[in-house]
Amino acid sequence: MTYCVGLLLNDGLVFASDCRTNAGIDNIATYRKMKVFAKDGDRTLVFLSAGNLAVTQAALSLLEEGTRGKKAGNILKAPTMFQVARLAGEAFREVHRIDAEHLKKHNYDFNATLLLGGQIKGEAPRLFQIYAAGNFIEAMPDTPYFQIGETKYGKPVFDRLLKQSMSLAEAAKLTLISFDSTIRSNLSVGLPIDMMCYRRDTLVPGYQERFTEGHPYLAEIRRRWGEALRRSFEDIAPLPMNEAIPELESVR
Amino acid sequence: MTYCVGLLLNDGLVFASDCRTNAGIDNIATYRKMKVFAKDGDRTLVFLSAGNLAVTQAALSLLEEGTRGKKAGNILKAPTMFQVARLAGEAFREVHRIDAEHLKKHNYDFNATLLLGGQIKGEAPRLFQIYAAGNFIEAMPDTPYFQIGETKYGKPVFDRLLKQSMSLAEAAKLTLISFDSTIRSNLSVGLPIDMMCYRRDTLVPGYQERFTEGHPYLAEIRRRWGEALRRSFEDIAPLPMNEAIPELESVR
Repeated sequence: MTYCVGLLLNDGLVFASDCRTNAGIDNIATYRKMKVFAKDGDRTLVFLSAGNLAVTQAALSLLEEGTRGKKAGNILKAPTMFQVARLAGEAFREVHRIDAEHLKKHNYDFNATLLLGGQIKGEAPRLFQIYAAGNFIEAMPDTPYFQIGETKYGKPVFDRLLKQSMSLAEAAKLTLISFDSTIRSNLSVGLPIDMMCYRRDTLVPGYQERFTEGHPYLAEIRRRWGEALRRSFEDIAPLPMNEAIPELESVR
Repeated sequence: MTYCVGLLLNDGLVFASDCRTNAGIDNIATYRKMKVFAKDGDRTLVFLSAGNLAVTQAALSLLEEGTRGKKAGNILKAPTMFQVARLAGEAFREVHRIDAEHLKKHNYDFNATLLLGGQIKGEAPRLFQIYAAGNFIEAMPDTPYFQIGETKYGKPVFDRLLKQSMSLAEAAKLTLISFDSTIRSNLSVGLPIDMMCYRRDTLVPGYQERFTEGHPYLAEIRRRWGEALRRSFEDIAPLPMNEAIPELESVR
């Protein structure tokens, strides 16, 4: 599988993706799932991808060819993030037209999702999740984040701690904790983690880092979060059990 | 969905199950998913069920009828937990023979899982997970717990904190934290939580409790665990970001 996250904050956007690709557990490889398109001073666009790697790579290749004028739509010239999301949806639809029936013959689903976040001059930063069917949804203040891939293990920490008013650096920390929880519980998500923090209104790609095994900040998070959970757990009293009173019926 | 957990500890067994059943999100009900069979001084058997409620109820009804001598297998007389697990698997197979083709006509899967834990005099406590096909696996010291249903949200805290040497009261606390994380992140798992803690070699059902909204210990866990996570999170330094150095390639 895969795990990718996009956060829409007052200060900008945080993106992160793992790098594990597997076709069966005996065929594991490292692939970058984050792709950045930028025109400095005008726009920064970040894509994260999950699902069938051939499908998402083909869609992103179509978008990249579009930026070189070889196709109609050019995401570096589209006037709004909404129009960029439509072009990404159209790229999925074109790949579907070409590949879907062949995938079906081999019993593969046309299974793919993109996160798209970024900012175009004149708009606020925006974040979208684009489905394989080419339709999409946009993140709103009520739920200012999207996850794709193996989303469940790392969701509780966002549900408890994410605030749209967080600084990028705090949100990046939370994102790494969410990835750590996921990687510990699920083999199909693996290091390194690619991260990009885009600061609102800068219109250039911001902080970018690849967190590999042994990265000092990631190592600190792993150690300190684990210790803090253990301490927090020990600080709560154990369940007071009155074993004398079975309250529930049983078959005897 | 459902969320059920069984833990195999040196001191005994902890069981917990939520009570939400849904057939579509507009048809939600409260059902008990924990069933106890006991012969005091000889055995305590606890079943937790997930999946198609009609299937798991039918299987448990067959097992219960068996205890009244109306069918061949009697789980209150089986000599070992392994034999009890086989009888439970056979119950699934009988339900499958009767119902599966009809479910298929209505596009329903024969989807069901049971956890079975307990102790029979002369054996140590044991814990099994029984699949819809009637086969099963047993928990071992390397991974001394099973989850069924919506398992992913609540798995990270077990992976980080569960030890087989924990007291029942500590393990019960950890289990309630795992349920709280799951309930916060997934609507299909809901209160109340049924819990049973079986103490090794007692051969009678142990502490049993139904945790409803407002139960003082559950409320304390929810409040203190949330606060502790927030504090732990704040104690870790934010990601030090050097925004001047974009390290990753982008399409410009």
